Amino acid sequence: MPSDPDEFRNDLSGEERLIERYFKPLATAPTAFGLGDDAAVLTPPAGFDLILTTDGVIAGVHFLPGDPPEFIARKALRMNLSDLVAKGASPVGFLLSIALPTKTPESWIAAFAEGLGQDIRQYGCPLLGGDTDHTPGPLSISIAAFGTAPHGAMVRRATAKPGDVVAVTGTIGDAALGVLIHRDADLAKQWRLSSAAKDHLEQRYLLPQPRNALAELVRAHASAAMDVSDGLAGDLAKLCRASALACEVDVAAVPLSDAARTVLSVESKLIERILTGGDDYEIVLTLPAAKFGAFRVAAEKAGVPVAKIGQVASGEGVRFMRDGKVLSLPRPSYSHF
Amino acid sequence: MPSDPDEFRNDLSGEERLIERYFKPLATAPTAFGLGDDAAVLTPPAGFDLILTTDGVIAGVHFLPGDPPEFIARKALRMNLSDLVAKGASPVGFLLSIALPTKTPESWIAAFAEGLGQDIRQYGCPLLGGDTDHTPGPLSISIAAFGTAPHGAMVRRATAKPGDVVAVTGTIGDAALGVLIHRDADLAKQWRLSSAAKDHLEQRYLLPQPRNALAELVRAHASAAMDVSDGLAGDLAKLCRASALACEVDVAAVPLSDAARTVLSVESKLIERILTGGDDYEIVLTLPAAKFGAFRVAAEKAGVPVAKIGQVASGEGVRFMRDGKVLSLPRPSYSHF
Repeated sequence: MPSDPDEFRNDLSGEERLIERYFKPLATAPTAFGLGDDAAVLTPPAGFDLILTTDGVIAGVHFLPGDPPEFIARKALRMNLSDLVAKGASPVGFLLSIALPTKTPESWIAAFAEGLGQDIRQYGCPLLGGDTDHTPGPLSISIAAFGTAPHGAMVRRATAKPGDVVAVTGTIGDAALGVLIHRDADLAKQWRLSSAAKDHLEQRYLLPQPRNALAELVRAHASAAMDVSDGLAGDLAKLCRASALACEVDVAAVPLSDAARTVLSVESKLIERILTGGDDYEIVLTLPAAKFGAFRVAAEKAGVPVAKIGQVASGEGVRFMRDGKVLSLPRPSYSHF
Repeated sequence: MPSDPDEFRNDLSGEERLIERYFKPLATAPTAFGLGDDAAVLTPPAGFDLILTTDGVIAGVHFLPGDPPEFIARKALRMNLSDLVAKGASPVGFLLSIALPTKTPESWIAAFAEGLGQDIRQYGCPLLGGDTDHTPGPLSISIAAFGTAPHGAMVRRATAKPGDVVAVTGTIGDAALGVLIHRDADLAKQWRLSSAAKDHLEQRYLLPQPRNALAELVRAHASAAMDVSDGLAGDLAKLCRASALACEVDVAAVPLSDAARTVLSVESKLIERILTGGDDYEIVLTLPAAKFGAFRVAAEKAGVPVAKIGQVASGEGVRFMRDGKVLSLPRPSYSHF
């Protein structure tokens, strides 16, 4: 309320105070105008394109309402960074839309902004603007993220070639197992996991590791690529469909963590969940066989292991081969529908 | 489900089918890749900046759950277009995040996409990408919209000058009255509104008219500008605070529709709501007095009336003057907090 009731002073509303205190410090780019305007400015350097993506999370759908706010913030941003890097783009900034349940404590917002700030610094990807609302529903976050790539160099899904090798970064299935443990800690015992193995799987679910170090290498080597977010099987099927091609994957070649191998040794049926469960935030890419060796060496030099898991062919559909037979995967991939 | 259970076919998930059917036809820009990739490409022409903004709506907060889906879609987009034009930018595309309650009928989505398509064509602002989820909460839509403006020409909030005239487009307060009628039709009788006047106010609430024809004129004439979305009083206070200046507004000069005048003749107290209620999607701008005449003539040639409502001065705070006295406005402006 204005101190002088006859004058309509420049007082801050609740929303403005929140933005001023927690989000303005994250808007470090000069053209974000300290979040003090209605829009921000972004201009790719001459010869570069802007690459745009958007992805969001909703409490109860993509995370548990009690998950630590700093992890929710970082995961929401990293999901988008993962999309950018798989397209060969380097992140330059993002817009944040957040709908907060009416009784969200300020300490939650402080922790959320703290986590977001860590990743903004780590990935050099500042907040450019946003929209804050209260909602009668669950907490929801939507991020639109922007990257740059040399003109015309964005790596597509639709451009795989017959004969290309299929490769994947890191390990697959950890987060899909991690979320099960996160929801039911007893599973860790049932799967005979060490405390370190349990933590590894749960962390992989809570905090994706987008492969940002690889943006340039993906551009230089991949014929097609995408990030693995909805499950390797389903995402590879999307890439093949976009390219109007088929592929065959050697299940034994799919890279697994020691923790995931331990789980499989107890419950072999979980290979299905590993291949279809999602939340991996690794990169699946196709590339000419002759380029694979150089790509692997360069990626490993950048700290990211790479495995060859299959081959592209003419036709359609993705076959997962195990012990000379086709592995039947009953569930296509993670979908919220 | 795959027709051959041993092969992981390229079948579409429910989400993909929805996107393919309703949203892909709206992604007319070649660099949106028919929504068949993880990202889109946007490159401003040489010498131009990209201007970014984001705004969203939530059922029960910004609209009634039973409102027609085509209006919800168009309003969500137009709120963002209004921000762009007030910054002197011409729209070039947008990203759409939509969270649908689990039981949303397909007919709702069809009508939503139909309304969105109309505005995409009308404003030449295609869908570039998006994110679709189901939610246990209310329907929520978040849009990130992009425009272009010549390098460095974005019109800021922070650059008003002492002595500048304050001007506003169109009429103020219609939507703030319209939402009251939309919620309680009896008010139209109480306010002695004709059917046409009632419709006018309600339409102004349901379907904003962003002043896109004025983007270039705002750039050429305004020293500072923003769109009026949270109420004239509150938004003008933001502009003055950003510019570290004060202003005085002549309440009698604030442009009102005939319908709003009729309402005021019955209930004069509603002037407060008119000045603070929001959802106007007009442009408030400051400009040198010498430029006002030329701006008004050019804007009216483009079909948009413009009124001079006040003056910028050094100091702080916004005063609304009526009959030589300061009008006391108890409620700063619309805020969801």
